[in-house]
Amino acid sequence: MKKEKPLILLSNDDGVEAKGLNELIRGLSGVGEMIVMAPDGPRSGASGAITSERPVRYYKEREEEGLTVYKCTGTPVDCVKLALHAVVPRRPDLVIGGINHGDNSSVNVHYSGTMGVVIEGCLKGIPSVGYSLCNHHADADFDPLLPYVRRITEQVLERGLPSGICLNVNFPDRPTFKGVRICRQTAGAWVNEWKRSLHPRGGDYFWLIGEYDNHEPEAEDSDHWALGQGYVAVTPTQIDVTAYGVMDELKNWNLKI
Amino acid sequence: MKKEKPLILLSNDDGVEAKGLNELIRGLSGVGEMIVMAPDGPRSGASGAITSERPVRYYKEREEEGLTVYKCTGTPVDCVKLALHAVVPRRPDLVIGGINHGDNSSVNVHYSGTMGVVIEGCLKGIPSVGYSLCNHHADADFDPLLPYVRRITEQVLERGLPSGICLNVNFPDRPTFKGVRICRQTAGAWVNEWKRSLHPRGGDYFWLIGEYDNHEPEAEDSDHWALGQGYVAVTPTQIDVTAYGVMDELKNWNLKI
Repeated sequence: MKKEKPLILLSNDDGVEAKGLNELIRGLSGVGEMIVMAPDGPRSGASGAITSERPVRYYKEREEEGLTVYKCTGTPVDCVKLALHAVVPRRPDLVIGGINHGDNSSVNVHYSGTMGVVIEGCLKGIPSVGYSLCNHHADADFDPLLPYVRRITEQVLERGLPSGICLNVNFPDRPTFKGVRICRQTAGAWVNEWKRSLHPRGGDYFWLIGEYDNHEPEAEDSDHWALGQGYVAVTPTQIDVTAYGVMDELKNWNLKI
Repeated sequence: MKKEKPLILLSNDDGVEAKGLNELIRGLSGVGEMIVMAPDGPRSGASGAITSERPVRYYKEREEEGLTVYKCTGTPVDCVKLALHAVVPRRPDLVIGGINHGDNSSVNVHYSGTMGVVIEGCLKGIPSVGYSLCNHHADADFDPLLPYVRRITEQVLERGLPSGICLNVNFPDRPTFKGVRICRQTAGAWVNEWKRSLHPRGGDYFWLIGEYDNHEPEAEDSDHWALGQGYVAVTPTQIDVTAYGVMDELKNWNLKI
């Protein structure tokens, strides 16, 4: 009996028309059967948001050999949930988010809709990977990434990932890479985050912008350092966010009423 | 010189008019000077989402002794970012999210706008706490929580929290509690997540609902167990989501191109 091809569910936060998603599809050609359920427009910064106040719909965009593309009115996480519920013929072997137009290393993991996709796949018990390029332009060049995306994807399919752990893979914006480094999340923060403008009819409005402040620029095991040096940064990411190290201390607090 | 009262920044994801937020303000009366920047409507399930595609505005709602309330057109995380940028007179001593109408224990931490607020405060280096009640009704009874909310808040102000660590506090829906337990995040997942309905003009639409499936119902150190037994569950939560335990194994993968 012929072995079934792996089934790969893809989504993103830049929307179904984004170049990064379509380059991902191109780069994974032949690796498996692909089902895409992506937002019908940009959802950058959607994090793990879900849609609870209104209903969600989806539509088939196109279908070809080994690929079916749907678009969805919801968030990136909605896309994963709805695809798993309504369109996949069987449980996917892999969930992929991306390729994101923009850096999801360091604290960006907390804001990223791409990583929302990946964490949702992981919460559903499916090996999950997010790919992001440190270039947010719509026409960014994804060519240099594709051999790495393919290799990492094949390795995850072959080896699997431990339960509750997914991968956050970021690529520097360069024509070639020095190699792959396994990293930890860099400590940092966004500063100077708002640009104030005056509304023509009065009052202020604010655009979210900001500059990234790296709290540990010399840390050679951190993802932001690796990217700055020209490496592909693979940051294993977990869904258990318990701070185990402080549990004992908290038990000494005076919390009796 | 008289010691300055602590400055507390409050937000939520149920919106500025939600009972939980206003009960929180009532419960913390006198503990510190309070500034509220809350969404102008419900943002349940907003997670760590930020608004990047359009500008954000805020408006002063009301001002009284020790309390100023603003509403904001953005997400819960936007509220924290914008308050810190535009309205606080000095760096807050504490950021609080809540009191949420609904359970944010276990994997809900990943979808919660309340915990989005808290994680954002933590990312900004400010001690941060989220309070949630396991009852999502608009008129839920928050009275039993208030002495605990006040005590935990006072303890955080007195003792601080380690850098990068915040608290996720959940209350069972009961008139009294057995006490407080320091917990870890329960492993679980949402299942049967969508209700399909037929649109009157054709086609399906989907409401996100779902049932919580606890993967470890007997785990006495987990937050969901504590809630089920009638305890207040305090789950320390960290912003570093690196899965340190798998880094060495990943270094053996074949990732050379």
